[in-house]
Amino acid sequence: MYKLVLMRHGESQWNLENRFTGWTDVDLTETGRQQAWEAGKLLEQKGYQFDLAFTSVLKRAIRTLWITLDAMDQMYLPVHNNWRLNERHYGDLQGLNKAETAAKFGDEQVLIWRRAYAIAPEPLDENDERHPKFDPRYARLSPDQLPATECLKDTVHRVLPFWNDSIAPAIKSGRRVLVSAHGNSLRALIKHLDNVSDEDIVNMNIPTGQPLVYELDEQLKPLRHYYLADPAVIEAAMAAVAAQGKAKKA
Amino acid sequence: MYKLVLMRHGESQWNLENRFTGWTDVDLTETGRQQAWEAGKLLEQKGYQFDLAFTSVLKRAIRTLWITLDAMDQMYLPVHNNWRLNERHYGDLQGLNKAETAAKFGDEQVLIWRRAYAIAPEPLDENDERHPKFDPRYARLSPDQLPATECLKDTVHRVLPFWNDSIAPAIKSGRRVLVSAHGNSLRALIKHLDNVSDEDIVNMNIPTGQPLVYELDEQLKPLRHYYLADPAVIEAAMAAVAAQGKAKKA
Repeated sequence: MYKLVLMRHGESQWNLENRFTGWTDVDLTETGRQQAWEAGKLLEQKGYQFDLAFTSVLKRAIRTLWITLDAMDQMYLPVHNNWRLNERHYGDLQGLNKAETAAKFGDEQVLIWRRAYAIAPEPLDENDERHPKFDPRYARLSPDQLPATECLKDTVHRVLPFWNDSIAPAIKSGRRVLVSAHGNSLRALIKHLDNVSDEDIVNMNIPTGQPLVYELDEQLKPLRHYYLADPAVIEAAMAAVAAQGKAKKA
Repeated sequence: MYKLVLMRHGESQWNLENRFTGWTDVDLTETGRQQAWEAGKLLEQKGYQFDLAFTSVLKRAIRTLWITLDAMDQMYLPVHNNWRLNERHYGDLQGLNKAETAAKFGDEQVLIWRRAYAIAPEPLDENDERHPKFDPRYARLSPDQLPATECLKDTVHRVLPFWNDSIAPAIKSGRRVLVSAHGNSLRALIKHLDNVSDEDIVNMNIPTGQPLVYELDEQLKPLRHYYLADPAVIEAAMAAVAAQGKAKKA
């Protein structure tokens, strides 16, 4: 039996500022850093050791991982960063806050982007300075790999090759793996692992900075999963995330 | 022409406490963290961008790298940690301070360990809890790879395969490389690059937290090298390192 630990990054600055983030490289707040430290201390206290960590190329996930490894005194762990673990690309919505978004597109349209599995926001213009082709971290990717917008379905399609080619083989080789990523790249992994329907996955909330343990059989089918923290802590964290979503986007 | 940047970690806690460190996993002091931040800001100001970073599995080098990348806003950089970039293993001296060392082995013997290229301190006992075989980060290495002590010659012999197999090919493939490591693993690299004699290499001082740029030709032969900081800053930093060496070991 294998164990895999998934973790969504701690609170970011744009969570606080009520803005769509996507691939924008926003940093953690002090609260977010504290969440990451507590996650590491919880993992250490429960006796977790890892052999390998995966994260995105966005600093809120990388910093969450760094702080977690520091708290566990496992800074020496090999870390693989990959763009395929990035947050869902939010297209032309990136940087907008709720009021701006409603003013620009209407409440009904925003609700569709939030709830529909297969409908993406307007793409970024090719010349928009927010387009990933202008960012040096994506310089080695081909133009057709770089999204200008994504629906959750698109995110699932670009996360899964990384699961199949990198994460899954590492787990099968006996390495104990920690993944620090984002709400929607983790939804993509969980949809695949637990075979969640297109309808159900968009309503699943993942609390920030909470280690989520998957126990997997030899074929990497989940036997069970659970959060490491006390259920009351998780319930409060889930409610906070759900409320944040409503305040921000609905 | 290629550019390679080498950097020795910032000041560590045991520099301050006047103790032999070696493979002991001692952290940076606040001064050491500040040095790393300033190194990153200097690299950013001079327009440096990297594609890949290498470091050891010791936290003073890893944290120096993390802080430097943070200051440069390049946290997304792929980082390869490897034990071959570790500091010289100081054998049974690890953890001792100058007074303890002189009392245990005599001043003359300590001078030999400090100055001789090919004479190592007494090895750690196989059952000594400081032996690397008890550390999970070395669990995948074979027993004959794990040192219980090293002279600088030994350090050179285990650093060079990593240069030849990993760092040099990355540079030749066009990747801009940053190496964050230790006084003696960097001496090993520099001895190889500049073909420094066994006698001269042990007297070469490398200041902490100062980016050292090597410009290399197509065969990775050095064309020139220089520190990024102002010469007066480097001179003061070198004098501080040389004085520290004397106060600690002579």
